[in-house]
Amino acid sequence: MGIGNIFRAFQPKDKVFFVLFEQVAQTLVEMSSDFHKGLEDYDLNDDSLLKKMSDYEHKMDDFTHEIFVQLGENFITPFDREDISQLTVALDDIADHIYASAKYMYLYKTNEIKAFSEFSLLIHKSCVEIQTAIQNLKGFKNPAAVRESSIKINSFEKIADDVLSQSLVKLFESNDPIHIIKAKDVLEYLEIVTDKAEDVANIMESIIIKYS
Amino acid sequence: MGIGNIFRAFQPKDKVFFVLFEQVAQTLVEMSSDFHKGLEDYDLNDDSLLKKMSDYEHKMDDFTHEIFVQLGENFITPFDREDISQLTVALDDIADHIYASAKYMYLYKTNEIKAFSEFSLLIHKSCVEIQTAIQNLKGFKNPAAVRESSIKINSFEKIADDVLSQSLVKLFESNDPIHIIKAKDVLEYLEIVTDKAEDVANIMESIIIKYS
Amino acid sequence: MGIGNIFRAFQPKDKVFFVLFEQVAQTLVEMSSDFHKGLEDYDLNDDSLLKKMSDYEHKMDDFTHEIFVQLGENFITPFDREDISQLTVALDDIADHIYASAKYMYLYKTNEIKAFSEFSLLIHKSCVEIQTAIQNLKGFKNPAAVRESSIKINSFEKIADDVLSQSLVKLFESNDPIHIIKAKDVLEYLEIVTDKAEDVANIMESIIIKYS
Repeated sequence: MGIGNIFRAFQPKDKVFFVLFEQVAQTLVEMSSDFHKGLEDYDLNDDSLLKKMSDYEHKMDDFTHEIFVQLGENFITPFDREDISQLTVALDDIADHIYASAKYMYLYKTNEIKAFSEFSLLIHKSCVEIQTAIQNLKGFKNPAAVRESSIKINSFEKIADDVLSQSLVKLFESNDPIHIIKAKDVLEYLEIVTDKAEDVANIMESIIIKYS
Repeated sequence: MGIGNIFRAFQPKDKVFFVLFEQVAQTLVEMSSDFHKGLEDYDLNDDSLLKKMSDYEHKMDDFTHEIFVQLGENFITPFDREDISQLTVALDDIADHIYASAKYMYLYKTNEIKAFSEFSLLIHKSCVEIQTAIQNLKGFKNPAAVRESSIKINSFEKIADDVLSQSLVKLFESNDPIHIIKAKDVLEYLEIVTDKAEDVANIMESIIIKYS
Repeated sequence: MGIGNIFRAFQPKDKVFFVLFEQVAQTLVEMSSDFHKGLEDYDLNDDSLLKKMSDYEHKMDDFTHEIFVQLGENFITPFDREDISQLTVALDDIADHIYASAKYMYLYKTNEIKAFSEFSLLIHKSCVEIQTAIQNLKGFKNPAAVRESSIKINSFEKIADDVLSQSLVKLFESNDPIHIIKAKDVLEYLEIVTDKAEDVANIMESIIIKYS
């Protein structure tokens, strides 16, 4: 069996990870889209958005588990096992923090939907870029495009920083400390989602730098 | 000198790290046990629990320092120097955040002992699992058991997340903003301890994946 | 062309990174010095300190971008690409959090200058040590001195922890929840700067451990 054949024999196993990462990215795109849409006509007393986010979060946990199982079994990986493991954890963190945002929105019955919705749009845009980046990371076919997505995700995080500070300044005008504490918590959870997306972007960039 | 002899000559140095990690794990088990017991009959005006936690925290700093000194001297390490260094910092972070929790409990004179105690039990259980995992990590003798401990630590962190949100909802019923800010701070420090335990679990899992 | 010539041909490219890291360190020293001085006669309604910090933050972003561009182009690097990438991100985080502190100081119009100034001095001292450490990291000429700077930066972080808890206890005496929430936020941002400096110290130490 020539080297080419050996290569082809290993290919399917190698591809397992990209298939899984593509499913993870697709899940994040759907989760963030449903999250953003759910905030349009959000009812503080209806837990259906929270339940939906909880389902997505569990689905992401299952993918994360599957990737770790595959990491334990496959000898051949498309890039270093530590990079796969780091990327997996960072992607899961995005889902965890979208869920946490939805949880505290519901538990605290906070009504700052306009600001929440600005964040959810930035979060959705970041997840769409993550999906694009993962497609371009596959087989390292387009490192420049991965870098481009990463720059966009970083810019969404900067915008989210400004949305946070502007929302907080406005929030303090209410002069209601209990409301401020609650809404500030949710706003900060939302901002962390964009930080986590930035972490994903940084990890993908460092993978590109390492292998390109 | 045959390869076997060379191996044996290096063994003792190699073992230094596991001896130190076992002492670190033992310290965390004792620290978290004393922390949990100390909350049973906690007196807000008595700083003896804080002093005890401070002593443990210093002891952990000494171990951390010793591991870094050994890392600087030993050429042979049981696994990559970066992994040893990361694991050491993550274990030390657990002690730092138990101490921080005890510090703000005392400084703020906050009295939400029931919730605090739910956390300290989860923290202690996590430390016990960390000790088990480190024993099984030794010589990579039982990767499956390390993975099992890691799953347990992750599940304690998920429970801690729920304890936090439930405690916060209850806390807000007090309608006392100053009390809420203080108790929320302590509850969040306690929750971070379980996050740090999860970091330790993730690092141990990635070591297992790398070397097994 | 002999090996020596090949080496010399590559040297200049290799040096690019240290030249950039030295400029980054110099920028952090200047930024933290201007920040500390700016707090001496701070006027809550004057945004000139915030603008100055914003300029430094942009300058740091440009350096960060340049280092990543160089990482993408240069095959030879003085140490692992991941280490360069991690160190770059951690140094940029310091600037980001000094800027965030200045931003919330200005937006919230909070007047706890004495405590802020204690932090800014510790931050400046940490940046000076980072500069010293980077000079000693160059060519791995003085690993012991890097370790020494790292110990100092860690001690500044411990002091900052105490400054935070003491400032918070004093802050709560005001009994004004809105003021407490605002000033606590700024104090915590300032404390995070020293955490980020500690991250830089830890990364430099792990580089030293890896290559010395």
